[in-house]
Amino acid sequence: MTVFFEDIQLGDSAQYAKTITEADILLFAAVSGDNNSVHLNQEYAETTPFKGRIAHGMLTASLISTVLGTRLPGEGAIYLSQSTRFKAPVRIGQTVTARVTVKELDAARKRVTFQTECRVGEQVVLEGESLVIAPSRPQ
Amino acid sequence: MTVFFEDIQLGDSAQYAKTITEADILLFAAVSGDNNSVHLNQEYAETTPFKGRIAHGMLTASLISTVLGTRLPGEGAIYLSQSTRFKAPVRIGQTVTARVTVKELDAARKRVTFQTECRVGEQVVLEGESLVIAPSRPQ
Amino acid sequence: MTVFFEDIQLGDSAQYAKTITEADILLFAAVSGDNNSVHLNQEYAETTPFKGRIAHGMLTASLISTVLGTRLPGEGAIYLSQSTRFKAPVRIGQTVTARVTVKELDAARKRVTFQTECRVGEQVVLEGESLVIAPSRPQ
Amino acid sequence: MTVFFEDIQLGDSAQYAKTITEADILLFAAVSGDNNSVHLNQEYAETTPFKGRIAHGMLTASLISTVLGTRLPGEGAIYLSQSTRFKAPVRIGQTVTARVTVKELDAARKRVTFQTECRVGEQVVLEGESLVIAPSRPQ
Repeated sequence: MTVFFEDIQLGDSAQYAKTITEADILLFAAVSGDNNSVHLNQEYAETTPFKGRIAHGMLTASLISTVLGTRLPGEGAIYLSQSTRFKAPVRIGQTVTARVTVKELDAARKRVTFQTECRVGEQVVLEGESLVIAPSRPQ
Repeated sequence: MTVFFEDIQLGDSAQYAKTITEADILLFAAVSGDNNSVHLNQEYAETTPFKGRIAHGMLTASLISTVLGTRLPGEGAIYLSQSTRFKAPVRIGQTVTARVTVKELDAARKRVTFQTECRVGEQVVLEGESLVIAPSRPQ
Repeated sequence: MTVFFEDIQLGDSAQYAKTITEADILLFAAVSGDNNSVHLNQEYAETTPFKGRIAHGMLTASLISTVLGTRLPGEGAIYLSQSTRFKAPVRIGQTVTARVTVKELDAARKRVTFQTECRVGEQVVLEGESLVIAPSRPQ
Repeated sequence: MTVFFEDIQLGDSAQYAKTITEADILLFAAVSGDNNSVHLNQEYAETTPFKGRIAHGMLTASLISTVLGTRLPGEGAIYLSQSTRFKAPVRIGQTVTARVTVKELDAARKRVTFQTECRVGEQVVLEGESLVIAPSRPQ
């Protein structure tokens, strides 16, 4: 689906939620090459301040890309930039909800700035901002 | 491996490189849920300005996390924030080199700011900045 | 399927063949944690004596376990030991045929020694020996 | 990283540890083709002497390859041979530590023989020996 630039308004929002499993962490380690022990070694992870394995921060961040690329604006969006602040760890079995909310519209360049946030229940685990070009409605 | 805060100096750098395959894109789509057609549908992707399938921007960004989590500082690093600007697409079969370079050191809080960059050959495909806490050398 | 110890004869053999893809190498890297650049970084791999990415030797070796665990003896086999000599690299797109041949039978302990070999076309890429306990025919 | 032949001494050791998950077993089955029920069918596996699903022996063995290919000697190592004796099963959720220790050095041919061992807690689950060529320090 696509929401065209002309149909996007300040305050519009969309979300995507997913349960993070051991398999997600294993496959993210494969794709990224990041096999840091805090993600893959339960015995080690229990000795850290996290007290167990946690998901890669960028795995959580990737859910924001999913909202932008599949829901708002969706197909045809061009991703320009993303900032992320990691606020709390995400553990195996937790469900992360990524939400984006329109904060600024630049009609001349069809650019949309989103405030972005990922939560586990009420806890904010990631905060940031996205900038994308939304496709224009065909004339 | 771990490079302790006390051993990190301004200008230090580290890198990680990986060839991006169809399997990487498929698995990143699986983990993130981002099944935008520009990543998975060659026929559609050929009709876009990209003229073919491209990797998810956040897949490229995840290689930065790999350098930080496995090389500098490596095990024990705590990821606080990341900014990324996507400068050019990455295509199947291209080799991406992610590099981080120490830009600022905050000794009081053991925080390291890195300038981060991903390249394909000479072309910069991603630029940004990372902030991490590096582990302290055991006394 | 199961071939019981009582039905196994000297010289019996079985095989399993599989084309090694980029996806196999990526997933093997995930499961093993072995992300050595010769497997995942085409640009680097071209600078090595191998002149390109190669499969993990243990990935090739794992096909022997497949013959033993699914064909001869199959279900119920207990794997005691394996030796492997890596003779030549396996490249993406090559089809590996793993073959095991019965070399010794120890009726008192129901143990079977196999000569094992993996080939790509006529080239032997791996040689070795396996020792397994085969299940006994139910009385 | 690479440890050059000239810097390797008798008794040097390195290790890699990883928690074995259901996803690891599934992906190893996919890559190897070894879909023996003792790995994938909990109901069947409960009727065997193992009393539940166990990891493929070669999955455990692959962790040794990880130590050799990423830590000692690391990048540039050439794997010549491996022997493995499977001593005890590895179950889902257990953390396996693979360790290699230098046992013999052949300076003429830059070959290193390692004693190799995998443990779960104090229990040895795999024993064996590896032979690799370590890269030489550039002149």
